[in-house]
Amino acid sequence: MSSNYGHKVKISIFGQSHSDAIGVVIDGLPAGEEIDLEKAQRFLDRRAPGKNAYSTPRKEGDQVQVVSGLFQGRTCGAPICAMIENTNTKSKDYDQLKDLPRPGHADFTAEMKYQGFQDHRGGGHFSGRLTAPLCFAGAVCLQILERRGIAIGAHILSIHEGKDESFNPVDITKDELVQINEKAFPTIDDGVAEKMQEIIQKAREQGDSVGGVIESAAIGLPVGIGEPMFDGLESKLSSILFAIPAVKGVEFGEGFGAAELLGSENNDSFYYIDETGEIKTKTNHHGGSLGGISSGMPLVVRTAFKPTPSISKEQSTISLKEGKDASLKVVGRHDPCIVPRAVPCVEAAMAIALLDLYEENRK
Amino acid sequence: MSSNYGHKVKISIFGQSHSDAIGVVIDGLPAGEEIDLEKAQRFLDRRAPGKNAYSTPRKEGDQVQVVSGLFQGRTCGAPICAMIENTNTKSKDYDQLKDLPRPGHADFTAEMKYQGFQDHRGGGHFSGRLTAPLCFAGAVCLQILERRGIAIGAHILSIHEGKDESFNPVDITKDELVQINEKAFPTIDDGVAEKMQEIIQKAREQGDSVGGVIESAAIGLPVGIGEPMFDGLESKLSSILFAIPAVKGVEFGEGFGAAELLGSENNDSFYYIDETGEIKTKTNHHGGSLGGISSGMPLVVRTAFKPTPSISKEQSTISLKEGKDASLKVVGRHDPCIVPRAVPCVEAAMAIALLDLYEENRK
Amino acid sequence: MSSNYGHKVKISIFGQSHSDAIGVVIDGLPAGEEIDLEKAQRFLDRRAPGKNAYSTPRKEGDQVQVVSGLFQGRTCGAPICAMIENTNTKSKDYDQLKDLPRPGHADFTAEMKYQGFQDHRGGGHFSGRLTAPLCFAGAVCLQILERRGIAIGAHILSIHEGKDESFNPVDITKDELVQINEKAFPTIDDGVAEKMQEIIQKAREQGDSVGGVIESAAIGLPVGIGEPMFDGLESKLSSILFAIPAVKGVEFGEGFGAAELLGSENNDSFYYIDETGEIKTKTNHHGGSLGGISSGMPLVVRTAFKPTPSISKEQSTISLKEGKDASLKVVGRHDPCIVPRAVPCVEAAMAIALLDLYEENRK
Amino acid sequence: MSSNYGHKVKISIFGQSHSDAIGVVIDGLPAGEEIDLEKAQRFLDRRAPGKNAYSTPRKEGDQVQVVSGLFQGRTCGAPICAMIENTNTKSKDYDQLKDLPRPGHADFTAEMKYQGFQDHRGGGHFSGRLTAPLCFAGAVCLQILERRGIAIGAHILSIHEGKDESFNPVDITKDELVQINEKAFPTIDDGVAEKMQEIIQKAREQGDSVGGVIESAAIGLPVGIGEPMFDGLESKLSSILFAIPAVKGVEFGEGFGAAELLGSENNDSFYYIDETGEIKTKTNHHGGSLGGISSGMPLVVRTAFKPTPSISKEQSTISLKEGKDASLKVVGRHDPCIVPRAVPCVEAAMAIALLDLYEENRK
Repeated sequence: MSSNYGHKVKISIFGQSHSDAIGVVIDGLPAGEEIDLEKAQRFLDRRAPGKNAYSTPRKEGDQVQVVSGLFQGRTCGAPICAMIENTNTKSKDYDQLKDLPRPGHADFTAEMKYQGFQDHRGGGHFSGRLTAPLCFAGAVCLQILERRGIAIGAHILSIHEGKDESFNPVDITKDELVQINEKAFPTIDDGVAEKMQEIIQKAREQGDSVGGVIESAAIGLPVGIGEPMFDGLESKLSSILFAIPAVKGVEFGEGFGAAELLGSENNDSFYYIDETGEIKTKTNHHGGSLGGISSGMPLVVRTAFKPTPSISKEQSTISLKEGKDASLKVVGRHDPCIVPRAVPCVEAAMAIALLDLYEENRK
Repeated sequence: MSSNYGHKVKISIFGQSHSDAIGVVIDGLPAGEEIDLEKAQRFLDRRAPGKNAYSTPRKEGDQVQVVSGLFQGRTCGAPICAMIENTNTKSKDYDQLKDLPRPGHADFTAEMKYQGFQDHRGGGHFSGRLTAPLCFAGAVCLQILERRGIAIGAHILSIHEGKDESFNPVDITKDELVQINEKAFPTIDDGVAEKMQEIIQKAREQGDSVGGVIESAAIGLPVGIGEPMFDGLESKLSSILFAIPAVKGVEFGEGFGAAELLGSENNDSFYYIDETGEIKTKTNHHGGSLGGISSGMPLVVRTAFKPTPSISKEQSTISLKEGKDASLKVVGRHDPCIVPRAVPCVEAAMAIALLDLYEENRK
Repeated sequence: MSSNYGHKVKISIFGQSHSDAIGVVIDGLPAGEEIDLEKAQRFLDRRAPGKNAYSTPRKEGDQVQVVSGLFQGRTCGAPICAMIENTNTKSKDYDQLKDLPRPGHADFTAEMKYQGFQDHRGGGHFSGRLTAPLCFAGAVCLQILERRGIAIGAHILSIHEGKDESFNPVDITKDELVQINEKAFPTIDDGVAEKMQEIIQKAREQGDSVGGVIESAAIGLPVGIGEPMFDGLESKLSSILFAIPAVKGVEFGEGFGAAELLGSENNDSFYYIDETGEIKTKTNHHGGSLGGISSGMPLVVRTAFKPTPSISKEQSTISLKEGKDASLKVVGRHDPCIVPRAVPCVEAAMAIALLDLYEENRK
Repeated sequence: MSSNYGHKVKISIFGQSHSDAIGVVIDGLPAGEEIDLEKAQRFLDRRAPGKNAYSTPRKEGDQVQVVSGLFQGRTCGAPICAMIENTNTKSKDYDQLKDLPRPGHADFTAEMKYQGFQDHRGGGHFSGRLTAPLCFAGAVCLQILERRGIAIGAHILSIHEGKDESFNPVDITKDELVQINEKAFPTIDDGVAEKMQEIIQKAREQGDSVGGVIESAAIGLPVGIGEPMFDGLESKLSSILFAIPAVKGVEFGEGFGAAELLGSENNDSFYYIDETGEIKTKTNHHGGSLGGISSGMPLVVRTAFKPTPSISKEQSTISLKEGKDASLKVVGRHDPCIVPRAVPCVEAAMAIALLDLYEENRK
């Protein structure tokens, strides 16, 4: 059941890095929702590689074809199936990987799990390429959420030692999120963007790679989204975020930092906004979720990505065929840092999880 | 569907802080497994309050009664239902909370979600008390895992500013885990335990509270446990860990730290152990999971807990009845730090998730 | 995952015939619903044995105790857990069954499936006794459905050769359903009831048993309940009805009879009711479901029960211990016909399935 | 969640009658299974229309393209996605149906459920055309089951008044099932086939349609397949069988007939086969399932299909636009009897359900 996510809005992702196509089935969307496919394609293009110096030169082109589920431009109650052809695959690049599992990749674990039958080409079902259909599904969910007043955005909080400033968690505006999503290299502080790109460029030159942290936020969620216990906001969001390859940590609100605060520092006091009668908290250490349920404050999440495991430097590994230690130089196309391309993936994952919970909560 | 977890081994938790009883139904356990109920009770006792100076004086006495699913001391294919009576409830303590939501608690979000019908007494369904049945379910799963050579243990990595040393992720032994689980205040460095207890004691005296981080590990997992994408180890573990109240962050292996490493530093080289022919990695930055699937290396998880939101200090909040700002002093029994009691909860959550994935993977 | 049913409203049934208790957890009910526990108990009492000459003399007394999920008499968002103690168990009666599987029972299949570890006493988890918590869950769901204008009722359509008349599927009224539910032996034609009881009595005297068919109906369902394909009304209803022990057939509307009609006979023409503008069909061969979705016409279901497999007559079977053929006389308490007691079970199953789909459909 | 079926082996069907394509994602198949796509295509061709006088002249040509999940001809652990293009769609034929719902179809219920946004062309997501991907998924599952010694077959038990003889439920052989599956018009008694085709031809000439019953069987199932209660064989099979359009009744073994037998007639005595030590039953009224779990005897299922609702005769219906009664002549291509084409659909549904339960049961 590994490739399925969601209760009410349910996605099922298929494909391998080098199969004929990859794609996603999205079931349970409300009927009658207009879906702007060009806008969804633009969202997907944000994760496309080959756009600039700091990402892999493979040009995927990722043109989505929706083969079902829309009628006269709107959801019609039937599942959407979206396909992306795998056109630019160079399977030969990966032949050695059947024998020499790449450190930091799923080559070894998949080989063992599937007893040698996995599609090892380009990481198969474990490839970051599978985030393309995730992004498309997220783009669809996002359009529906936006119509309900919910906006999602994300920026690169850090790349290796380069740090951006954080969102002000108490007061994130829709404009701010829209603006940051339009940036080619989304940081709050533009000066930092340049430094981060230098870090990535330097890693590339050294045949190495770097990781980073993405900070994302959702605003406009009504109070009451999220179910208790195992379907709380944090549970649902973390389970989809950790499905993005290379994610090693997820935190909400103050996150790990909360472990070093006093209760009197970390608690967020409620108050009434005089004009509107709305209830807010003065601070937002809780990050928009109390008991797994949305509080009406901005939902703030940070997601840590490890450095791309594919590096050109020579590495130690094993030869499965020969049953002895070996060395490996990973050839082929790869990103020295996948964090910039992961920004829309994080937003997409959030959109899918939040629409599922939103629909689950319908009264 | 909020109170259900698991595909193959499925738990369903019920109860509120002040209902007649709380408990859990565990379905899908393999038949014929001997369950030592006294041992399970001892595991559960590790989370009991009232044991010492640094926890709430409420004595819960949590005696588990298994009402179904065992026959002649073994699992029989039918679901186990385990009940814990709520004997020591003082509902009056909580009456003001219907009006004045406590900062940092789910009082407000639950009130909104359930339109005023939630059982507000003691936090209702959102109470930390619901981790008692979680612990019992975990204790059952743990006994089955142990029979398959898998051991789980955890220690307090930090309380506020007090820091323990970390597990050596490359080489965690079963003895080490057993030993640490037997400590009343589980830290690797015993000197740190004392300091941490002082920190907690000081917080109590000041009417305040502190949080911390728990580091846990599972060893003995065969290679290949975990499903791709949404049912990977990290997804399944994080979704159950975030269901424990007060958890705000979860990371695996190097976690957030990986975002600051180079690929050449973070990648873990494979090698053969000459004597056994087993495949291991020299380092364990990946924390036992590659592509969401167990690598055979120790699985290492860190879980961040916020400081207990219940503090005696006066706080600002709102009066829902009067529709205006108000102030609140939380009375009643509460822990200045729930981290020590959360240690078995983390282990239990891991045991449930890992047994579910283990059974899912049966060949 | 066998003992769980439902997506949105989810039940988890536990217990064996001779465990300390049996019960059910009901998750996902809307909050704020008043539940009349005495009324639910009365519903449950309709399936109780020992009420008259034609059922087993075992007096179960099935007193339900709700231990969680209600607050001030209403659902509070937390799962309801209801327990029924197993007080009147005579385990000795069943000792021989560990060796000699009863024809028509699950003794043999359970023995094989669970490798000898199943709780064989009284049929264990496969006992008809487990329909008591099903009935309670149904009684709860029914109260919620009634508040939405939906009524469910059932009658005994046949016992062996004794046949009642059928519902008029075009026009079933709430009064009719209420009336039939109040009968101790629910048939439309009261004269038939007497004949059926004679058939049962005769079977008892001969140490034999008889089966029958229950016809049930739901009215007041709005148009649009049921999801396409695998979650259609027929799929969801049949999967829960077949979970009632002894059910061997389920049909909707014209059912098997439709296979012998022409399309022009079986199709139901739509028309407008002049006064209200409502859309109805002139006939109701479709039985209230088109494409798995409610049409607004009465939902009509027939469920076939085999004769009780427990009979006093000597039967051929095998001795598992001795590995050879053997003969068996089933002793202990048993019904010569379970159909009368199964009537509330069928209604309960329908109520659970329909509330689940109703909540799933919320707009 | 309507278009998803299965726990362990999970299918997700997508497409509408006139969308660009229809298809299915199959997740959870064991890795390393060889899939003969030509054989699967031949299976699918058995449901194709336009083959002879008694079915619709629309030639669908249903060529399946597998776009993912296979590597070197074998399952590789990733989900299979199979697509079938909708090439021969004449959308104009259906334009009037947006206004005039066809009696016996889902036009009306879908219109109401999706508030007018459904894809009404050709029945949209409710079209019998969606059984093509179901058949393909079944063909894949069947190949895996066959490798485990399990065979599935089906024949037309009745068309309107034409009746075939039944399987001998005690002794169905693999050869018998293979043979019947190879017949263009599968009946046990070949003389009956001719009569049935005359009945269909006559219905066509009269602008009418007929229904029928399909009897199917699975042999070679080991004892112990099926989970208790809601995931028993009958529950799982009926829920997928009722997802096939036009199915109105499902029964197992003696089915509705069991309601007229005495317990002493209906119970099946166990005995040992002397030579092999296997345990069998002398008769097979139970139809291969006791307590929802396979007994090792042939699994026998009968599925009732209503007559095709699309008939050329003029019918009464309503005009939704004009809000008044109207009359309708259904034009376009349609079968006077879908039963012959439904035979592989029933087999496919059984294969999917049985593989799911088989995998669920892995020890």
